[in-house]
Amino acid sequence: MRIYLAGPEVFLADAAAIAAAKKAICAQHGLTGIFPTDHPDHAPAGYEPDWFRLYLANEAHIRSCDALIANLTPFRGPSADPGTVYELGLMRGLGRPVLGYSNTTARFGSRTLAALGLSARRRPDGAWEDAEGMQVEDFDLHDNLMLDGGIRAAGGVFETAAVPPAERWRDLTAFTRCVMAAARLLRDRPPMPGGTRPGAASP
Amino acid sequence: MRIYLAGPEVFLADAAAIAAAKKAICAQHGLTGIFPTDHPDHAPAGYEPDWFRLYLANEAHIRSCDALIANLTPFRGPSADPGTVYELGLMRGLGRPVLGYSNTTARFGSRTLAALGLSARRRPDGAWEDAEGMQVEDFDLHDNLMLDGGIRAAGGVFETAAVPPAERWRDLTAFTRCVMAAARLLRDRPPMPGGTRPGAASP
Repeated sequence: MRIYLAGPEVFLADAAAIAAAKKAICAQHGLTGIFPTDHPDHAPAGYEPDWFRLYLANEAHIRSCDALIANLTPFRGPSADPGTVYELGLMRGLGRPVLGYSNTTARFGSRTLAALGLSARRRPDGAWEDAEGMQVEDFDLHDNLMLDGGIRAAGGVFETAAVPPAERWRDLTAFTRCVMAAARLLRDRPPMPGGTRPGAASP
Repeated sequence: MRIYLAGPEVFLADAAAIAAAKKAICAQHGLTGIFPTDHPDHAPAGYEPDWFRLYLANEAHIRSCDALIANLTPFRGPSADPGTVYELGLMRGLGRPVLGYSNTTARFGSRTLAALGLSARRRPDGAWEDAEGMQVEDFDLHDNLMLDGGIRAAGGVFETAAVPPAERWRDLTAFTRCVMAAARLLRDRPPMPGGTRPGAASP
């Protein structure tokens, strides 16, 4: 069974080392980890710009996998990396299991208020809003409710770990718990249509 | 044809007015706009927490629509609202057209560098990275390449407009161009499986 390893670690200079470590943990649990930077089985056709070839390769990887584990650790703000969030939604739309983890245990509402700082203000009803009048979502969740909800709806788990700042992008404790949950999930349910088919065509 | 109107305007105190204005523009072009806060045709079953009922209602809305227009105006940072980004990916996974707009013409790379400020630094190869050593993506795009790529792969458009800061969440110039593009797109292609079916079940 193939697991797409979504996350912003692709932006690290030593992304290859992270990829190898994540794949080794997957292998220990009988799964094949697919990292975004892996060479696709079928190179995108045509004369597309580099960025769009990267997109097409990532989408093809996701379509070839049976499940997705997203690194939803807050990225340059209160929320997860937007590329990772897009991929989480894409896999949910394909109807396959999605799981997520975050290397912080702070909740989304408190992280947002911390980022807004003194610009946050109270509405008459007591809810917090930002300087543009947009409410601060606060359901005691890990991130925006669509992320937590997609994982729950798909039968996945959202694991968190309190990790020292210097290890935020490298600690794999919560990731490992996701891999174990994915292995259980995929053992207990039949493969989804389209899964385990490298290079499955897009519609 | 039904269009899901994804965007963070749900966080505004006057979200209902924005919803009405967007729906009126859709109607002028023969389309039915569906806003996230619309009451779902079928209430989610069971005794779920409020936040998860909201998730299920939004997912059901998206599954009932033929296309999606996402407001990808930068939200509390260089990127779009993560809930909106998730919904964009979800609709792409369902195989239906996605379109996006942003009320800024500044590119993602320059917005990211502006947000990082003095913490940004150069790698030996000249690329920018943040204080955690994560590279700044810069492909001269509107946002993370997965967002621009998903819209392009789906045959959509990514419209932008230079809008004064005070009108950032209310100007509908770029949105209107998306609606016109969606109307053309849906006229030129057959309805996708699952579209125009209110309350379509999730898998």
